[in-house]
Amino acid sequence: MSSFGTLFKVSTFGESHGVGVGCIVDGIPANLPLTEADVQPQLTRRRPGQSSLTTARNEADTVTILSGTENGLTLGTPLAMMVRNQDQRKFDYANTAAAPRPGHADYTYQVKYGTRASSGGGRASARETIGRVAAGAVAEKWLLQEHQLKIACWVSSIMDIDLPKEVAKALESDPPTREEIDTFGTLAEDEENDYFIDMFGQKYSRTDGEPLNSAPTGKSFEDGKKLYTRCPHPATAAKMAARIQQLRREEDSTGGVVTTVVSGMPVGLGEPCFDKLEAELAKAMLSLPATKAFEIGDGFDACRARGSKNNDLFDKGTNGLLKCKTNHAGGTLGGITSGELLVFRVGIKPASSISQDQETCTFDGEPHVLSVKGRHDPCVLPRAPPLVEGMTAMVLMDAVLRQRARTGAPCRTLGELGHGAGKTARSLAAEPPAKMAKGS
Amino acid sequence: MSSFGTLFKVSTFGESHGVGVGCIVDGIPANLPLTEADVQPQLTRRRPGQSSLTTARNEADTVTILSGTENGLTLGTPLAMMVRNQDQRKFDYANTAAAPRPGHADYTYQVKYGTRASSGGGRASARETIGRVAAGAVAEKWLLQEHQLKIACWVSSIMDIDLPKEVAKALESDPPTREEIDTFGTLAEDEENDYFIDMFGQKYSRTDGEPLNSAPTGKSFEDGKKLYTRCPHPATAAKMAARIQQLRREEDSTGGVVTTVVSGMPVGLGEPCFDKLEAELAKAMLSLPATKAFEIGDGFDACRARGSKNNDLFDKGTNGLLKCKTNHAGGTLGGITSGELLVFRVGIKPASSISQDQETCTFDGEPHVLSVKGRHDPCVLPRAPPLVEGMTAMVLMDAVLRQRARTGAPCRTLGELGHGAGKTARSLAAEPPAKMAKGS
Amino acid sequence: MSSFGTLFKVSTFGESHGVGVGCIVDGIPANLPLTEADVQPQLTRRRPGQSSLTTARNEADTVTILSGTENGLTLGTPLAMMVRNQDQRKFDYANTAAAPRPGHADYTYQVKYGTRASSGGGRASARETIGRVAAGAVAEKWLLQEHQLKIACWVSSIMDIDLPKEVAKALESDPPTREEIDTFGTLAEDEENDYFIDMFGQKYSRTDGEPLNSAPTGKSFEDGKKLYTRCPHPATAAKMAARIQQLRREEDSTGGVVTTVVSGMPVGLGEPCFDKLEAELAKAMLSLPATKAFEIGDGFDACRARGSKNNDLFDKGTNGLLKCKTNHAGGTLGGITSGELLVFRVGIKPASSISQDQETCTFDGEPHVLSVKGRHDPCVLPRAPPLVEGMTAMVLMDAVLRQRARTGAPCRTLGELGHGAGKTARSLAAEPPAKMAKGS
Amino acid sequence: MSSFGTLFKVSTFGESHGVGVGCIVDGIPANLPLTEADVQPQLTRRRPGQSSLTTARNEADTVTILSGTENGLTLGTPLAMMVRNQDQRKFDYANTAAAPRPGHADYTYQVKYGTRASSGGGRASARETIGRVAAGAVAEKWLLQEHQLKIACWVSSIMDIDLPKEVAKALESDPPTREEIDTFGTLAEDEENDYFIDMFGQKYSRTDGEPLNSAPTGKSFEDGKKLYTRCPHPATAAKMAARIQQLRREEDSTGGVVTTVVSGMPVGLGEPCFDKLEAELAKAMLSLPATKAFEIGDGFDACRARGSKNNDLFDKGTNGLLKCKTNHAGGTLGGITSGELLVFRVGIKPASSISQDQETCTFDGEPHVLSVKGRHDPCVLPRAPPLVEGMTAMVLMDAVLRQRARTGAPCRTLGELGHGAGKTARSLAAEPPAKMAKGS
Repeated sequence: MSSFGTLFKVSTFGESHGVGVGCIVDGIPANLPLTEADVQPQLTRRRPGQSSLTTARNEADTVTILSGTENGLTLGTPLAMMVRNQDQRKFDYANTAAAPRPGHADYTYQVKYGTRASSGGGRASARETIGRVAAGAVAEKWLLQEHQLKIACWVSSIMDIDLPKEVAKALESDPPTREEIDTFGTLAEDEENDYFIDMFGQKYSRTDGEPLNSAPTGKSFEDGKKLYTRCPHPATAAKMAARIQQLRREEDSTGGVVTTVVSGMPVGLGEPCFDKLEAELAKAMLSLPATKAFEIGDGFDACRARGSKNNDLFDKGTNGLLKCKTNHAGGTLGGITSGELLVFRVGIKPASSISQDQETCTFDGEPHVLSVKGRHDPCVLPRAPPLVEGMTAMVLMDAVLRQRARTGAPCRTLGELGHGAGKTARSLAAEPPAKMAKGS
Repeated sequence: MSSFGTLFKVSTFGESHGVGVGCIVDGIPANLPLTEADVQPQLTRRRPGQSSLTTARNEADTVTILSGTENGLTLGTPLAMMVRNQDQRKFDYANTAAAPRPGHADYTYQVKYGTRASSGGGRASARETIGRVAAGAVAEKWLLQEHQLKIACWVSSIMDIDLPKEVAKALESDPPTREEIDTFGTLAEDEENDYFIDMFGQKYSRTDGEPLNSAPTGKSFEDGKKLYTRCPHPATAAKMAARIQQLRREEDSTGGVVTTVVSGMPVGLGEPCFDKLEAELAKAMLSLPATKAFEIGDGFDACRARGSKNNDLFDKGTNGLLKCKTNHAGGTLGGITSGELLVFRVGIKPASSISQDQETCTFDGEPHVLSVKGRHDPCVLPRAPPLVEGMTAMVLMDAVLRQRARTGAPCRTLGELGHGAGKTARSLAAEPPAKMAKGS
Repeated sequence: MSSFGTLFKVSTFGESHGVGVGCIVDGIPANLPLTEADVQPQLTRRRPGQSSLTTARNEADTVTILSGTENGLTLGTPLAMMVRNQDQRKFDYANTAAAPRPGHADYTYQVKYGTRASSGGGRASARETIGRVAAGAVAEKWLLQEHQLKIACWVSSIMDIDLPKEVAKALESDPPTREEIDTFGTLAEDEENDYFIDMFGQKYSRTDGEPLNSAPTGKSFEDGKKLYTRCPHPATAAKMAARIQQLRREEDSTGGVVTTVVSGMPVGLGEPCFDKLEAELAKAMLSLPATKAFEIGDGFDACRARGSKNNDLFDKGTNGLLKCKTNHAGGTLGGITSGELLVFRVGIKPASSISQDQETCTFDGEPHVLSVKGRHDPCVLPRAPPLVEGMTAMVLMDAVLRQRARTGAPCRTLGELGHGAGKTARSLAAEPPAKMAKGS
Repeated sequence: MSSFGTLFKVSTFGESHGVGVGCIVDGIPANLPLTEADVQPQLTRRRPGQSSLTTARNEADTVTILSGTENGLTLGTPLAMMVRNQDQRKFDYANTAAAPRPGHADYTYQVKYGTRASSGGGRASARETIGRVAAGAVAEKWLLQEHQLKIACWVSSIMDIDLPKEVAKALESDPPTREEIDTFGTLAEDEENDYFIDMFGQKYSRTDGEPLNSAPTGKSFEDGKKLYTRCPHPATAAKMAARIQQLRREEDSTGGVVTTVVSGMPVGLGEPCFDKLEAELAKAMLSLPATKAFEIGDGFDACRARGSKNNDLFDKGTNGLLKCKTNHAGGTLGGITSGELLVFRVGIKPASSISQDQETCTFDGEPHVLSVKGRHDPCVLPRAPPLVEGMTAMVLMDAVLRQRARTGAPCRTLGELGHGAGKTARSLAAEPPAKMAKGS
């Protein structure tokens, strides 16, 4: 259904054709500073039409808080947020009324409900994610304030263009900030002179993204139309941009992979058995439209390794906690966070809407050549990070609240136990957290 | 926590050291024929010590139904099942009391709870899955009875040994039965003459699994100790068996991938937004111990494809429904089943328990060489299918019940609408399912 | 938290000071005809300022559907509804900032959250119920359409004024319609000539509600200001109106009891053990502001009876079902509906806001005479029926959906099994409902 | 269904005819000292056959912990407990197979499920409550340890015999301990000399419970068979015992009311809107078999009061908190605990099983005189307190855990903030609880 979470509970509503889309977020602790300004940036990063790499539809997507705050602080009561549908997509109704679009949910909704929204995806449209992104931005703010926890998600592959392996590994162990991802992943396009240029002044071919100069050009990054790839490695970003533009010309689309790393992880988040942290994350990610795969840590690669290499050996950490010498596991053991960086990847399929003719059939089973012209997004990857970050934040905030319930104390982070000198994981265990909270 | 599902709700209990492990299964419709004999086979397939490929511990794992049935029929009330802990593992307590085992949850449980079971994994031990397998067997029986729905899970990779690509594809589009998986995936070992032999009499090298003869040998498959790989392609199974035995000799371990295909899928299962069917499956799979990755349909490969190839075009089906010409999606569109085969893969990490010395540290952060001798399982993959099948069944049964609530009628399957001749997906929609149920 | 229900799931938001209040309703089956016109009437009945018996604040409370419908039909997706806050109550902030109002939640919210809304009750204000009433109206419409199920709630006591016992019993076994409740329970006030007059032209003293004439007066009911009591017995309604007006003059308030009867009940609703139907109803009712008591059937009176009198003996019903000769139980047995009228009562405390001075203390514990002048509502009972009806509908619709999931068929009602002639409760049991649904 | 609670989650199983009954309790914080000895006393108080006032069936009801503890401490993992069914009730199957017993759930289960347990109530039998009582005992222990919170439940009415009003009020404002309830509420019966005798040596008539002596008799309380009433006022207890014995002679039964008071309440428990504390309590109580009514504080009496009398005025409390001068509300405001005593009453109907002939009908609708002979319990009230206490504890523990999640700190109690001198509710609010937990 349209609700997610146990203690931090998000319910979303809305489809493309109604008054608006939005969410109710229940379970936000009181007194968190919060205004629309905290939520808008992620909605803007999610928005189509940000750059010439994604669809040109201009949806302003301005969020309004309907309830739950006063004087810029949360009240502890449900926060409701809404984004009005204003610039409704012009939709090829005639075509889609007759035939279900391949790769879309038209057919399955029709059979499941005996009806479906006429306006494209309806609830299965990407607009559904607006409520998630808004709710996730709130969770992110709280996690940062309470635990200095930071979530970074970037594009690591688009079609056949991957981050070089060593770059990918480096980013996973020392994640960039969101600002770095946006800065390094943004190119400017000079159509007249036929090149992309990155923030450092490096130029790249618009045909294949190969670098065009070996020395700084002095040209300003500011020139030309912006292309957002959200791949924080300019040389790879340029190749990705070239591939996306090629696919647009070919009226085709593609998919890719995003990588997420969370730093500042407390130890002890996640519930054993069914609600393991990676299980909640996997559900969260596969609940996003167009996602097809999830892996944590070394993921499928781990399955080909030996145990003697894959086991992360322990070492002394700070403040009485331990750390791992490696992080093949990706930040959890037995479904519970170990304090290491949380690392996972999500695979996203090619956009289903393409301008090419498709030989499919009507709802009645009659052969039908579907031809839906328009400015389709050849690759949604650059817009995916705010969605993934939002769902990640929702999962983590829920996990933190659940663990707080258990211990009656904020979760332990590697950094916060300044008074813990001389204590160890063993002795801390003998002095359970609930007691600490009662003391003072 | 230890509960799963909305309407078909499973709660499990138990760790290795207590009286037993088991579950309560709530939400089973009444009058389903059910005795222990329906549940035991999957528990036996899950059991360690089935073959020389897995650990030699002999846990009888005999299930008892404590409540919820009378005269071999379910009452509609909670079904409780228990397996007693009898042959408790001899555990190297001295070592594990001092130092958390790498790859295990000893450390994270200790910090999360301020305590942990002394007997190995406690709740994080593989014994926790017994309750799931038992509950899943009940769901499987109901799904088969109500929808002729069949779940098949097999081992497709172990370490570097993969099913040949064309074999993998063939199996995914025409899945073997469980009996075929067990039969084709079982080898007999002749230690004296140093070969494996499959059910067809083909012999393979115990060193590398290469075939030793090109013509039938007449040798009986029955000779020698049984090796269960649950890879239904004997030539690959032999290589897997060889690799596992090599790793045991080397005191090491490895992981692999299992593939699951469900046939007989009704159209319309799964809830939009957060509870998409693939999201529930991903959570279910990542909640199993040692799982690190999940993909549905073409999964990560789909991310590298073009939309024009990845979109599954529609064609006329039977009984007024449609079918897809291909199944890159793996059986869902927008999180809702399309009636195509449900296809997904789960990645499982190398077993964490190895006999090799590991240079790790104690709970106090002191350097420690951990040496846990014993007969460790070098690869749990052959025992994974009943776990994956069980979780799959739990997810699907819950989805069927949720959809029934909506329509007031059993879900539509491609086969069941015999009266639907001349009807189409469109006209069926105009005649909503609830009306059908009221008729008669 | 602010969510209710398992399959019919309502989440509400909003407090008095924000942009608006409303709800998301998830789980409504598709294709239910629904527009704002289906929801508005109950909101209007809930609204303060309807009559001179309740507060004069004029909150227009016009509902807008934000999502979930198209062309006047539900889509099966979340229905979001909102009522904007326009005529915000002028609130005595200075006073209530210093001291928590007795009987209100100012103090408990302040300690629970470390903050509270400045605008009166905030989330604890009666405006919170708007989302519930809106959601309940949707459930009511569906229940009526699917099961001809009708919910009637009326005021049976206000302070010391009770419906005469025989009238109360008669109403409980043959419940009035909502229109009858509103019509018979409405008086007109003639201030000039100092009387109330009911729809039949009967006049009553404004001092004590005693009848003033024994023969019809010919005077029009339409004259004078309307007083809504929602007590469908005019003679009692007049006494209630007089008592309420007396309390207003005395700057005091009071409470009372509402009685609810649901007709058209299917057999078999409600879940055993924790989610018994009366348990869900009790929770639903005690979750409404100002409620203090709940009883089903004979309630507390049953506790003083003998079993031989309290047991409802069975008799042959129609369509193979049974009926009860009496209905002391109030419509359930073992938490499951028996098909008899569902009968329950809810006790509501005196309104906490009074204009009298109250000798209380500040948040700091300093003695403080609280004096909150204004037009307080001396008795909220006349506005309570739409709240109770709404929560009742939510509980019942959820129960119907849960039972549908189990049987794969609409629930059995006494009326719908026209084909069941010759069948009995026994033989119907031998032919389980799921089979029926598959037939046709 | 058979699960209850959000963070402290109880799932029960079992009916009278199977192997046993029991529960899984999930969400118990780790390191709580716990053995069977903590749970058994409440099961023993619940047990039938304790005294000649209740049925003579001797069910030993010995509990076994199956999982979740080690060395007498909880592990934080699911606690499973079971009581074996050993002395199964001899049941009049012939009669009950033909006709549903009035007042029981035979008929509603049969229609709901299309089947029912043959052994009397099956899941609707009172044995179902064993799992609840066991789980509640665990919650009680934790609440006592963490918050010095004490739950006392006693019998305040049986049929027409009520505690004198002033005694009832006195007990509600200064509740007896459980030991006092059991001691003062226990009589000994001297059949030979035809009197009851209380612990003080006071004798009472076995006919009507009137006192027989005005001065101490010196007779020992120990003589004779024990009668447990759980009404802590011996003079009333004697009248209750006489009434129950009269009803047994008359082959009839009756009901009554229990009163519960919880002391040591923290401020701030309970969730606004749908999950108000009284709403959760009401659900918990109405989910118990045979309960028909619930009221908190002055309950239905409050509905007849004036606001000026019913409002509880505030006064300075200790440790910066406030207290109320009266407690008409019964311990909550806006669904959230105020720190006052939690006071509520539950109405229980007459036992449905009576030996008298009942003119009812068969499942087929044929007239039938039902005659179920046997030693039926004429009044279950004396056995009700452990059930009510157990459910109360489950609700409160869940509420405490939910509030802990919010604040990251144990809940505030009037007694625990020893360092809070000079602080006030206002200043404490400015210093949110989460900070306190971080300090130390």
